Amino acid sequence: MKARVYVTLKNGVLDPQGAAVQHALSSLGFNGVDAVRQGKVIELDLDETDAAKAEISVTKMCKQLLANTVIEDFKVEIL
Amino acid sequence: MKARVYVTLKNGVLDPQGAAVQHALSSLGFNGVDAVRQGKVIELDLDETDAAKAEISVTKMCKQLLANTVIEDFKVEIL
Repeated sequence: MKARVYVTLKNGVLDPQGAAVQHALSSLGFNGVDAVRQGKVIELDLDETDAAKAEISVTKMCKQLLANTVIEDFKVEIL
Repeated sequence: MKARVYVTLKNGVLDPQGAAVQHALSSLGFNGVDAVRQGKVIELDLDETDAAKAEISVTKMCKQLLANTVIEDFKVEIL
């Protein structure tokens, strides 16, 4: 079973990486980009075959390792 | 208009970051994780109001800056 986790910075948390991308885009002549935020996608291959159990387990992984819940939000998707 | 870009390593390209996450998960006692791949999500706020034009413009951004098309795949989603 596959799972996908999206980790994004919470609103209001400064995103220097996103700001750098925005700046680079405008240097390249792409105007009309008002804001850029960058996050992570993590794809996991799991042995678990039960979707509900997989989601519980992946949520636990997020809280313990994959996301820093102080400044980041995460979303789990079971495929 | 908002756009979301997913950038992931192509299959077969070594992913040391993903391997590190997998190792860390198993150290934390999460067994049954066979593979981990890590990618990026980039959220863009665009002035453009036409979805088709926005998609063309974002695809161009991906090819020029956001993704390294030699080793990475990208997917554009207009929200």
